[in-house]
Amino acid sequence: MAIEISKLKNGLTVATDPMGHLETAAIGVWVAAGGRYETEAVLGVSHFLEHMAFKGTISRSALQIAEEIESVGGYLSAYTSREQTGYFVRCLKEDIPLAVDLLGDILMNSTFEADELERERGVILQEIGQCADNPEDLIYDLLQEAAFPNQPLGRPILGTNETVNGVDQAMLRSHMKRFYGSDSMWVVGAGAIDHGALVTLCEKAFDGLTALSEAAKPEPALYHGGARIEQRDFEQAHITLGFPGVGVEHEDFYAAQVYSEILGGGMSSRLFQEVREKRGLCYSVYSFHSGYTDTGLFSIYAGTSADDANELVSVITGEMERLATKVEDKELTRSLAQVKAGVLMSLESAYSRAEWIARYLPRFGRVLTPDELVKRFESVDAVQLKSFGTRLMETRAPAFAALGPVAGLDSYDAIAARFGG
Amino acid sequence: MAIEISKLKNGLTVATDPMGHLETAAIGVWVAAGGRYETEAVLGVSHFLEHMAFKGTISRSALQIAEEIESVGGYLSAYTSREQTGYFVRCLKEDIPLAVDLLGDILMNSTFEADELERERGVILQEIGQCADNPEDLIYDLLQEAAFPNQPLGRPILGTNETVNGVDQAMLRSHMKRFYGSDSMWVVGAGAIDHGALVTLCEKAFDGLTALSEAAKPEPALYHGGARIEQRDFEQAHITLGFPGVGVEHEDFYAAQVYSEILGGGMSSRLFQEVREKRGLCYSVYSFHSGYTDTGLFSIYAGTSADDANELVSVITGEMERLATKVEDKELTRSLAQVKAGVLMSLESAYSRAEWIARYLPRFGRVLTPDELVKRFESVDAVQLKSFGTRLMETRAPAFAALGPVAGLDSYDAIAARFGG
Repeated sequence: MAIEISKLKNGLTVATDPMGHLETAAIGVWVAAGGRYETEAVLGVSHFLEHMAFKGTISRSALQIAEEIESVGGYLSAYTSREQTGYFVRCLKEDIPLAVDLLGDILMNSTFEADELERERGVILQEIGQCADNPEDLIYDLLQEAAFPNQPLGRPILGTNETVNGVDQAMLRSHMKRFYGSDSMWVVGAGAIDHGALVTLCEKAFDGLTALSEAAKPEPALYHGGARIEQRDFEQAHITLGFPGVGVEHEDFYAAQVYSEILGGGMSSRLFQEVREKRGLCYSVYSFHSGYTDTGLFSIYAGTSADDANELVSVITGEMERLATKVEDKELTRSLAQVKAGVLMSLESAYSRAEWIARYLPRFGRVLTPDELVKRFESVDAVQLKSFGTRLMETRAPAFAALGPVAGLDSYDAIAARFGG
Repeated sequence: MAIEISKLKNGLTVATDPMGHLETAAIGVWVAAGGRYETEAVLGVSHFLEHMAFKGTISRSALQIAEEIESVGGYLSAYTSREQTGYFVRCLKEDIPLAVDLLGDILMNSTFEADELERERGVILQEIGQCADNPEDLIYDLLQEAAFPNQPLGRPILGTNETVNGVDQAMLRSHMKRFYGSDSMWVVGAGAIDHGALVTLCEKAFDGLTALSEAAKPEPALYHGGARIEQRDFEQAHITLGFPGVGVEHEDFYAAQVYSEILGGGMSSRLFQEVREKRGLCYSVYSFHSGYTDTGLFSIYAGTSADDANELVSVITGEMERLATKVEDKELTRSLAQVKAGVLMSLESAYSRAEWIARYLPRFGRVLTPDELVKRFESVDAVQLKSFGTRLMETRAPAFAALGPVAGLDSYDAIAARFGG
């Protein structure tokens, strides 16, 4: 990585990671905006705004936006997460000027026309319906709500039918004004890209962008825990467990990642071996740790048949107990090898490199190099892992979400009684 | 691409596509085996065998297989499609010898032990349950059945609960003997890999592999058409339409791919613009053309609310009618640009390059170069596209699958009446 970072006169940060052997580039704009920054009254507005960015600017219709980028074989997309909204293009190197011009245009000059807004509302309501039909999507919304109830971090990013129906032009404009500023946006390019050229393009495309009048900061999240059970006509009982994790700057963040790899990362992980290989209870079972700015959530997902759901929860709990007692050296070595190889593989893709920069630059003001990242993982030892595992076991109120044929499940109190120290 | 291809003494083909700037490699073994080659009595056995390849060999337990590859940060996986089964590893370049040794071992020396088989049966039954909970998975099984009823190509790759319950050790052994031979398997490596070294490794790892006693050839598929409607407690009405497509060697194959790109490929496609952008009826709407050896299936998917489902089908049909009448020059130009850029992007990933080779070598005996592929797309003209579109419109019995709250849908006969010329 030979990352270059510049700050434009208007305060916008532009970073590049050139990969000389490529013919294509990935360019994105990441914004410190997302579900985490929303009050209940405007739930879903970040995601709605992300959709409306494609629906027309002062000089381009929605159709023109789509046709211009696709007529050169480019790919334009966007996503909204809890703490970030990302807009990005994949294109041939000769089309970078068009890509940057488009990104600037949709983020600076969108018009949010009333009829486009109404149609896009319909699209988003359909997206909510699609999410409701996907148990692995839906159950994470339930789990997040169980972990962080009555807080932005616990609410669905898409919003609800009700809140999406309430979004209007004024809300979109006000949201953009409040969160889209030169000090809350980062332009990142990787692949067949030149730093100086990207800076010049951004000076033009983001001319007139100003800093936010007030820096946006989400309120601190407070883990709560509890159960969200939804009986649905699904084949499988979909089960998730959640526990308080740590924020990305917390000293235990890397221990949490390694713990998750050992418990439920790959085929050799404890959960895969015990739940799937030894008992054949699941096709999918895995764990992961989501780190936010100031907090985190450690989660486990598994899908099984109604009859096996109680055994499944019991086996998962048992594996967490065991891992809090003893971590084997070979597990630590293995998870480190997985992290290292994963880093090398992700560096081979232009988009992954851009996303790497976008992960660190906004939060840390600098980019962790691959070597630094590996060193942080190397510093994790068995003592830290057992301590993290013990902390999970001491959770008095785990978050628990279940979806499907779950009428026969043990009570939340019985499950929670396995925890709490 | 600087592809090298060798044939070992035992008849096994080994191909490489070295990418000098990478630190990692992708190595896979592709087998001419899959759902397409199964009789009804052994439905799901190809997929079951693919699972059992991970469950222990003469010298390695299932746990050892998982631990050996993951302890060097490697990633081992596999999939079964209708005409191919693929086993592959992503790893650092220094671990290629281990990767090849493992691939050889699981494909030459698997033991299919009885207790492992029973547990894996449970895992596969869970996988079937998970697929049944995913409308976008399930509906393609319904559509495939509507298009090719009572034929291997119309049956689910995973099998059914009943057929999976019937699989035993003898069936697995017999399936392997019948389909896994030096003349039905292709080893492909891409990335940080040397051809000579891979050949030497394969000579050892696949020593003793013999040619099939009889070349396996699936029976020709016969498109039939008809409806499969399943009322389910989903939020959305999931709708697919299917039409006879063409095989990968058919002269219209590239026209079919371009037609699909124009009708329902990207944001600027006819369906995206008309269904999503102008009417807000869907979040997801797209088309694609699946080419098999001797036939193909052209499909459209969309998810919408129960109230909008009839309008949706009507709009889709209308767009197909329009496209059979007139293709605009700019659409042809745009789809070509998309194909070209897609080729360049896929060449940047080691796995995509290996998969590229595996797509062509088994079926054509050689690998299409990117230039050749682009030339084939460039040769497609508006006349061919209109003719392909007209042929779709002339389908007397389209395949139609609907899933969810679909009680209010127009009858199949009413939908089919829009077609048939």
